Amino acid sequence: MQERAKTTRRSLLEAAAQLFAEQGFAGTSVNDISARSGRTSGAVYFHYAGKEAIAVAVVQDRFAAWSQLAPRYTDEAVPPVERLVALSYDIARALAEDPVTRAGARLWSERATINAPLPDPFALWTAAATRLLARARLAGHLHPHVRPARTARTLVRAFFGLCVLTEALEDAAVITDRLTDWWQLTLPSLGPQVREDPPAGR
Amino acid sequence: MQERAKTTRRSLLEAAAQLFAEQGFAGTSVNDISARSGRTSGAVYFHYAGKEAIAVAVVQDRFAAWSQLAPRYTDEAVPPVERLVALSYDIARALAEDPVTRAGARLWSERATINAPLPDPFALWTAAATRLLARARLAGHLHPHVRPARTARTLVRAFFGLCVLTEALEDAAVITDRLTDWWQLTLPSLGPQVREDPPAGR
Repeated sequence: MQERAKTTRRSLLEAAAQLFAEQGFAGTSVNDISARSGRTSGAVYFHYAGKEAIAVAVVQDRFAAWSQLAPRYTDEAVPPVERLVALSYDIARALAEDPVTRAGARLWSERATINAPLPDPFALWTAAATRLLARARLAGHLHPHVRPARTARTLVRAFFGLCVLTEALEDAAVITDRLTDWWQLTLPSLGPQVREDPPAGR
Repeated sequence: MQERAKTTRRSLLEAAAQLFAEQGFAGTSVNDISARSGRTSGAVYFHYAGKEAIAVAVVQDRFAAWSQLAPRYTDEAVPPVERLVALSYDIARALAEDPVTRAGARLWSERATINAPLPDPFALWTAAATRLLARARLAGHLHPHVRPARTARTLVRAFFGLCVLTEALEDAAVITDRLTDWWQLTLPSLGPQVREDPPAGR
């Protein structure tokens, strides 16, 4: 029973995420979620207080969560800046391909029209990036003028803008290519150790 | 008469821009625009086909326009990369302070809910940045591996993400500081000539 309730809850969340990603928050009704999930509206209201509560759950589930990326983040065998770069590709891929992450990002961008406070993923991402940069700094992998917290803040914002605008202007399929362009423009400023292909001009 | 029509049209556009910037597209009605501008709804419909047409005009007026920045862009006495940097501060300041530009950016982010194709500012910004980078390249101010069009595309997306997220997470007042952080992380990859303060680590 407990297990069955979990399964229902999950199927509602995933149906809602698909709809939010496709049609946005305003364009999705509880009836749509019921129809897409094959459950009754009663089931929706049994598991969630309403459409706002489902939106919060969708954002929290992936977009503002870190758990599924934790192994990548904590792998001490990999230099911290490389872990940061690998994480950025994981997130970019999730933003391009995973419906729940995509829905989270779209809901966040529509937050002004949603009558509930949505969790903020950027504080989490920035804190994680700060810790990795601080470790890189301790290991001597960064230029001495690179400040972890300030740099993490800048990287997260530029990274997210790149992902969102690439999807809006081109197609989610090219996000990893665009991310590579961006890292090539950004990594040299962090520290020389992390560069595998030194720019031809030096 | 012609002049009076222009004045009315402009006052409607500015009233609508204030409202769109504050309340978004869905939260603003033609009646609100009429009330804010002190004109009748009839005047609104005389000058614009409807709320969508006003939204298009607001985006086109500043956010997707370049005219007011042209002197900065064409000043041949200034090295092209410096012009690019100066332009970015101009746009960031407009996004932070000018109601019509702010409204344009908000409407663009809400474009999925607006039943009219909005002009795309990014093609224009990217073309302008590409031309400046191409000139910098010709002048020998860029590392040889820096490709103008590809780099312009990356810079525009990262820049816009930085501005939008800074406003969302902090406050528009700090945008120029955050932009300085970003340029410090980005300029060294473009070319050594544009760097006034070489990183301490080299």
